Amino acid sequence: MVTEEQNTPNSFSCLKNALDVIGGKWKLCVIVAVWQGNKRFRDIGKYVEGISPKVLSGELRHLEMNGLIERTVHTGRPVVVEYSITDYGRSLDSLITAFVKWGMTYRNNCDSS
Amino acid sequence: MVTEEQNTPNSFSCLKNALDVIGGKWKLCVIVAVWQGNKRFRDIGKYVEGISPKVLSGELRHLEMNGLIERTVHTGRPVVVEYSITDYGRSLDSLITAFVKWGMTYRNNCDSS
Repeated sequence: MVTEEQNTPNSFSCLKNALDVIGGKWKLCVIVAVWQGNKRFRDIGKYVEGISPKVLSGELRHLEMNGLIERTVHTGRPVVVEYSITDYGRSLDSLITAFVKWGMTYRNNCDSS
Repeated sequence: MVTEEQNTPNSFSCLKNALDVIGGKWKLCVIVAVWQGNKRFRDIGKYVEGISPKVLSGELRHLEMNGLIERTVHTGRPVVVEYSITDYGRSLDSLITAFVKWGMTYRNNCDSS
């Protein structure tokens, strides 16, 4: 049973808050891509297979606005834009680990059924 | 840094698997609602504020198809349809806990900025 901790209106609204910020199909994938050192838009797009450039630029802007990634503009010639994970973005480590672990149980569950 | 565990193509695809099954704005909210004992469609809809009946029925069908919730039809008069969490659905406990905890840090982060 979801423990008492999740059984309060406050915890349910915290769940919804988190889903508003990092929910959806792509946000956690983009965060992991940046976290893995993919700095450039093109590299992030390659890492997160299937994401369109338009959706990727929206997700990057949303994640930057929420302080989870940082955007740096290098003003040389040519101008280079790079993304990096922030300390706050690193606070997602245990959540991403929980997601990966559950994804593995899901896959094992599929293989055994 | 996302630990080595998340740094393999396999773990990234497990993350995407998990997101395919329980990603999106509403699925985890619906799971928590059912887990909290909301059995009827109407009650689940009330618990998960803002979800439309059409979206709720799609999410319930998706979660049932993936074995995370169970749908029971009681054939009395009137017929009653009830939903309940499955053992497999309960495997989401640590992921939901991680989400709630992160949602709390997000809220504290907002309050302090």
